[in-house]
Amino acid sequence: MQNYRAPVDNVLFLLADVLGFYRHANLPGFADAGPEEVAAILAEGARFSEDVLAPLNRTGDIEGCVRNPDGSVTTPPGFREAHRAYAAGGWIGLAGDPAHGGQGLPYVLAAAMNEFVTSANMAFGMYPGLTQGAIAALTLHGSDDQKRTYLPKLMSGEWAGTMNLTEPQAGTDLGLLRTRATPNADGSFAITGTKIFISSGEHDLADNIVHLVLARIEGAPPGTKGLSLFVVPKLIPDPDSGAGTRNALSCVSLERKMGIHGNATCVMSYGGATGWLVGARDKGLRAMFTMMNEARLGVGIQGLALSEAAVQMAAHYARERLQGRALTGAVQPAAPADPIIVHPDIRRTLAAIRGFNIAARALMLSVALDADIAVRSPDAAVQEAAEDRVGLLTPVIKGVFTDRGFDNAVAAQQVFGGAGYIADTGIEQLVRDARITMIYEGANGIQALDLVGRKLPRDGGRAITAFFAEVGDFIAAHEDDAALRPFVRPLKKALDDLQGATVWFMANAMTKPDNGAAGATDYMHLLGLVALGHMWGRIAVAVAAKGTAATETEKADLLFGRAFMERTLPETGLRLARIQAGAETIMAIPAEDF
Amino acid sequence: MQNYRAPVDNVLFLLADVLGFYRHANLPGFADAGPEEVAAILAEGARFSEDVLAPLNRTGDIEGCVRNPDGSVTTPPGFREAHRAYAAGGWIGLAGDPAHGGQGLPYVLAAAMNEFVTSANMAFGMYPGLTQGAIAALTLHGSDDQKRTYLPKLMSGEWAGTMNLTEPQAGTDLGLLRTRATPNADGSFAITGTKIFISSGEHDLADNIVHLVLARIEGAPPGTKGLSLFVVPKLIPDPDSGAGTRNALSCVSLERKMGIHGNATCVMSYGGATGWLVGARDKGLRAMFTMMNEARLGVGIQGLALSEAAVQMAAHYARERLQGRALTGAVQPAAPADPIIVHPDIRRTLAAIRGFNIAARALMLSVALDADIAVRSPDAAVQEAAEDRVGLLTPVIKGVFTDRGFDNAVAAQQVFGGAGYIADTGIEQLVRDARITMIYEGANGIQALDLVGRKLPRDGGRAITAFFAEVGDFIAAHEDDAALRPFVRPLKKALDDLQGATVWFMANAMTKPDNGAAGATDYMHLLGLVALGHMWGRIAVAVAAKGTAATETEKADLLFGRAFMERTLPETGLRLARIQAGAETIMAIPAEDF
Repeated sequence: MQNYRAPVDNVLFLLADVLGFYRHANLPGFADAGPEEVAAILAEGARFSEDVLAPLNRTGDIEGCVRNPDGSVTTPPGFREAHRAYAAGGWIGLAGDPAHGGQGLPYVLAAAMNEFVTSANMAFGMYPGLTQGAIAALTLHGSDDQKRTYLPKLMSGEWAGTMNLTEPQAGTDLGLLRTRATPNADGSFAITGTKIFISSGEHDLADNIVHLVLARIEGAPPGTKGLSLFVVPKLIPDPDSGAGTRNALSCVSLERKMGIHGNATCVMSYGGATGWLVGARDKGLRAMFTMMNEARLGVGIQGLALSEAAVQMAAHYARERLQGRALTGAVQPAAPADPIIVHPDIRRTLAAIRGFNIAARALMLSVALDADIAVRSPDAAVQEAAEDRVGLLTPVIKGVFTDRGFDNAVAAQQVFGGAGYIADTGIEQLVRDARITMIYEGANGIQALDLVGRKLPRDGGRAITAFFAEVGDFIAAHEDDAALRPFVRPLKKALDDLQGATVWFMANAMTKPDNGAAGATDYMHLLGLVALGHMWGRIAVAVAAKGTAATETEKADLLFGRAFMERTLPETGLRLARIQAGAETIMAIPAEDF
Repeated sequence: MQNYRAPVDNVLFLLADVLGFYRHANLPGFADAGPEEVAAILAEGARFSEDVLAPLNRTGDIEGCVRNPDGSVTTPPGFREAHRAYAAGGWIGLAGDPAHGGQGLPYVLAAAMNEFVTSANMAFGMYPGLTQGAIAALTLHGSDDQKRTYLPKLMSGEWAGTMNLTEPQAGTDLGLLRTRATPNADGSFAITGTKIFISSGEHDLADNIVHLVLARIEGAPPGTKGLSLFVVPKLIPDPDSGAGTRNALSCVSLERKMGIHGNATCVMSYGGATGWLVGARDKGLRAMFTMMNEARLGVGIQGLALSEAAVQMAAHYARERLQGRALTGAVQPAAPADPIIVHPDIRRTLAAIRGFNIAARALMLSVALDADIAVRSPDAAVQEAAEDRVGLLTPVIKGVFTDRGFDNAVAAQQVFGGAGYIADTGIEQLVRDARITMIYEGANGIQALDLVGRKLPRDGGRAITAFFAEVGDFIAAHEDDAALRPFVRPLKKALDDLQGATVWFMANAMTKPDNGAAGATDYMHLLGLVALGHMWGRIAVAVAAKGTAATETEKADLLFGRAFMERTLPETGLRLARIQAGAETIMAIPAEDF
């Protein structure tokens, strides 16, 4: 995206002053991430995103990926060089295990960097993003041998990774998967089947592509309990020579799609390809689930990232475009018209996006930090609490950030008027790119069902109870502070709505699960709004605590927070009303009448 | 759009049983539109839309329009033949003046047909739509000579029309227009300048293209008070031979845009082209305004039409796609999975769209009928009341129908999961096409300002007062009817919110206009919600009045109405809260901080 400026200062402020990042210096890897190191890492990541990746975004959309007659795929101009530089910068293995070539830095820094990369060029960011997913899967479930073979090459970016789940008849319902694995004599398996919607499935950015494939071993039970995970490399590495033998798999076509044209979305065909079991037999879905939090958080970050890219473009345009006059009198009387940023309708649009972005960044970083704590803390109780919070808020971040990220891109496009519909302006690409984030890695309706059906009831409601305490304690601690009232009072009302919705579910959804499912999306948004409102409260407290040390930007940003509390947070009442409407009416409609 | 079925029965029911269309048989043209004629006209329009236009929609998107080296533009395959058939069917002049070749039928029937055409193929529909705009302009403001020259050819579709307003530096702010008109000796003018975003600006569907161009006569005052309207034909017709001489105008390029690829969006260059003044000198903007209601209503219809096309596609998919099981037990145990229409999250999505569409169709037809009454009624008081209602509700229909139409297309796309992002599925085209409706013919923020700044205060608030009485009388008449309570009670709460917002504006926006502008978009949506809720109330009353004569579909549709009252209408509370937030916070933010 043109003229993108990564929000480095905001990230540094949130980490240091709102989230207390540097209080965790005792955790593994955190000692290497002091204030100076973090500032240097983010500054370098910002520079790379702004200078190298952003200029390739429009051309990536226009040129797209091309599948050649031999089945190879050519990525857009500049992507190869950028990927090489990105890999050489150590970004792919930033938070990876140092035993296998990673830098071992906190994951929260990788999450911050992912926002920058995605704002600059989402289609590009998906290539290393998928590689990071494969790294996570093999780190958690791979054998020592698999780790030695694959992780160093993936972390260095010499090789790339993918995830192969979906088939034409099996999207959300993975139990319907048909790809089969037949045991070979040497302990490997022959993988046969067709996978669709495979992001980064084939490309020219790496020497090898490591596919992680869900398949059913012959004789395994039907449904999700018979699925196993396999590592299926495009080139089978020879342990001695390092060279590889071509495996029996190929990209048979690229999908023509609405956006992310710079990323190759492949139909992959496996014709008896050699693969090796990752983790336990028939436990493939569980293996997928353990790394799903990171993947879903990653997609939530994409929602935020495109919202940020969009508002930067729209605000720039609104300051430059001269049209009409301020209602209260000309602001630039010498010019033929005032810049459209004088208009309240433009301001409420931009303020709503900014108000979301800053709180969303805080929430995303807080959950990423909890993900670090969940695996690195020496204290089991601290680990458990962090894991609960990650589990509860990950579907919220995925669903809410991408729904709002898309809406924000659309709202930003509206600021451009007619120019927003023209491809050259660039903003319509952000809308098209953002649209996929609501769909992939579990459509947002599935995130909502995961939240309401699994995360809420788990362990007797331990996670949501802790969340209520977290927000409730904040309110109790600050409700007598008159200066904080514009933040605390709306938050209290919003928390009441959330608790009311939770009580309603307990009374009405246990016996009638349709009532839970009918309100799930609204509950997800309601919880997200409370979590975002809470972040604004914490930001306001942090700015107040900094006193004269607070920057002008930090102080000015609080106005976006107030606009959020006044104009966005009241949505909780609507969400509650919809939840309480229940399922009766919509379930009564005959299927053929829709 | 594939498998589109025009909602003929719904239109017939709304006209006959809800809107009392046949009670107006005394008006000019209405006598020729009895129940049999209307049924026959709509059935034929449905057939044409479904069989001829719908199959061209995908190819129109894929092939797009091509500008040839000589400046001519080739439309997508099949558009020429379809346009010829459409013109031959008499559709372009359906409601046109019979004195100039029109059929003189009620405009409300043309509005109903416009929905069908647009659902089937929006990009195509824009060509005759622009011609109808030119017909309206010349009918209202043309000289007798201009009417004789242009109207019969436009009504027959031999010639086509366009509107030329926007310039690079002048979009919303038409006062900045630079295109100039220099008087010629013979009373004509030489038009010079560049116009952008000109829909249907050049194409191969007609023998001639009649451009209506806003320009400034040399020496005219600056700003909007110096604008005049000109008719500038591509070929200057020779009154004797009928042949034409090429005028000095051309399409210099086509815009690359997000959607409506089948419509040619042109940059037009006028190099001293010969044009003739339409209406009075320097009164061009007023001439534009008088026909703007029809144009804006037309764009609102596009929003509804794409919402209808989208829900039809999504409902079809949801009945066919097998994935997962109903929460309450398998519905199709013999199949590998249940159709996804069993899931509450899918149902609430589809029900919300259907609940909007039916009420929106009723509201659109009611306003179109008022537009007929406003010009055809013999009773001045009836005319005035109808004109007030059209003036008040037109910006609402334009703004609300297109905002919701786009959101509905996005929601329908979500039902498809990953397939929704793939071009071949067709639903993503509807999203891209729908996006422009929020922008053109006055961006929706401008509609909201027109409503709040002009339509509300006009004539001492006569129109909004009448609207309050219209809805209030309905509530008073039916609030004791227990069977109607699910409709009347939520409507009463919504009307309270609207009146509360109106009172807040009176107290806070008169002295501080920024408060009105900051809440304008929310007010537009709030008024739209009340108007739609009122339509559902009227539909419920009509179905009850039909008793056993009501069809199964009419009765089942009431469930969509109940879902609308339960889940959509409560949004009025949120809109009111946002309005009452006022402008203070957002106006305090420094421009450079956005």
